[in-house]
Amino acid sequence: MKTRFQRVAIIGVGLLGGSLGLALKQHGLAAHVVGIGRRQASLNMAKDVGAIDETFLDVRQGAAGADLIAICTPAQDVIHQLDTLRDAVDPETIVTDVASTKASICAHATATWPQPLRFIGSHPMAGSEKFGPAHARADLYEGSVCLVETNELADPVSRDQIVALWEGVGARVVNVSPEEHDAILARTSHLPHVAAAAVALAAIRCAPDSAMVGPGFRDTTRVADGRAELWRDICLTNRDALLEGLEDLQQTLHDFQSALEHSDSATLEQLFQDGREARRKVLGS
Amino acid sequence: MKTRFQRVAIIGVGLLGGSLGLALKQHGLAAHVVGIGRRQASLNMAKDVGAIDETFLDVRQGAAGADLIAICTPAQDVIHQLDTLRDAVDPETIVTDVASTKASICAHATATWPQPLRFIGSHPMAGSEKFGPAHARADLYEGSVCLVETNELADPVSRDQIVALWEGVGARVVNVSPEEHDAILARTSHLPHVAAAAVALAAIRCAPDSAMVGPGFRDTTRVADGRAELWRDICLTNRDALLEGLEDLQQTLHDFQSALEHSDSATLEQLFQDGREARRKVLGS
Repeated sequence: MKTRFQRVAIIGVGLLGGSLGLALKQHGLAAHVVGIGRRQASLNMAKDVGAIDETFLDVRQGAAGADLIAICTPAQDVIHQLDTLRDAVDPETIVTDVASTKASICAHATATWPQPLRFIGSHPMAGSEKFGPAHARADLYEGSVCLVETNELADPVSRDQIVALWEGVGARVVNVSPEEHDAILARTSHLPHVAAAAVALAAIRCAPDSAMVGPGFRDTTRVADGRAELWRDICLTNRDALLEGLEDLQQTLHDFQSALEHSDSATLEQLFQDGREARRKVLGS
Repeated sequence: MKTRFQRVAIIGVGLLGGSLGLALKQHGLAAHVVGIGRRQASLNMAKDVGAIDETFLDVRQGAAGADLIAICTPAQDVIHQLDTLRDAVDPETIVTDVASTKASICAHATATWPQPLRFIGSHPMAGSEKFGPAHARADLYEGSVCLVETNELADPVSRDQIVALWEGVGARVVNVSPEEHDAILARTSHLPHVAAAAVALAAIRCAPDSAMVGPGFRDTTRVADGRAELWRDICLTNRDALLEGLEDLQQTLHDFQSALEHSDSATLEQLFQDGREARRKVLGS
């Protein structure tokens, strides 16, 4: 299924939104792309790089007449955007988002949006520590995985179009319920981010000569270079699952501590061995 | 200073020992390289790849007549090797090791070895998750950093020769006291390893579809693929500094937990921001 949209409105023209605009245009999936944002400078930049054709500071004005709206703001803001859009757009309009958490957003849409539901949540697993429209790339989604919400109340045709959209820009779609999405991402993405930040904070206390810092530290903490407000929002919108993950992480660190305190060589080796095997299973390698 | 050794004995012909042998031969820094190990199969493999010229299962026999001995066993085993060698080798022989912890090893050598001290501890920060002589590479140390022990009791000429050795195989030498070495490595290397293993263990509990696991998890946990017995030894020989680091890490995770429990947006953002800045400072970027 190949979908061509007439008028796509992208709310938030940062790395993800800007790259979506570029990719839609490059693949001929959109006739006209409208960019909506809070800062005219970002919108101008997105227009300059060719990600959007037209700019709007007002969400309702910009979204009017769109057949697809992609909310590409941080997670915490998506619900607010849905509330702003709800009475302003045609019920036929298909809406998606790109936030890294899904349960609270999809539950809110299901509870407040007209039925049959044409909001279908997405989580394209692309991006990097870079952000802003200046880093937008037409191939950002090429070869990536995009998680798309399963919801029995969703309009099947709209859902197919969202799947076609992501496949059209090069992503492989994996279907998942919002609750399962958040439970898994809490432990494979959000918890690693928290751990990376905590490891960096523990390291700075010894004020190391950076010549003595190896590639292991660089990799382990790479994701800590992400934008603080983005990760704040992700954590707050996936609070309960992340708290459960943190509890587990603390317990395992306590097991390491206890083994070390007792110089318990066998337990220590087993913990590292189990960690190694767990990693391989999680990665499917 | 360019040093050429007549007879180098390498105890432990794994990735680090095997690569040292290959590099010494490639750079013409050793006339004859003896490999000493516990398993004949590993020794044969090291000889087959050209890392060593001769094999010995007996440490004292193999080390006899060497002008340089490099102990390339796991950290926990170095002290035992020093004790085995002490009465068997000429006091003129220069000895080094490649273990990832230095305080306990260097203290033991200082306390038990003849003076002026010709044992100079080294920690080449090279290697990977791969191990064994089959992965040995002549260029493993090229462009890496090698930390070399500072010790006022060390024989200056021997120390210069150890520095020349590492520079000769392409490493940049950084001088550091064993205590400072261990305090810094506890937090920039050993603690990240423990955290990576703990993150992997927390992730496997949600039994994720590996298609849903992004590159952030892969990088954050990469070091958890290291060999369990190697990391067990490193942790046990740097117990106190690592326990202090674990205490700090647990406290920071507790701060994250508390901020999440109270949905304290400002504190959460500040923690991520501080983590980001800490990482950049540690890496000197």
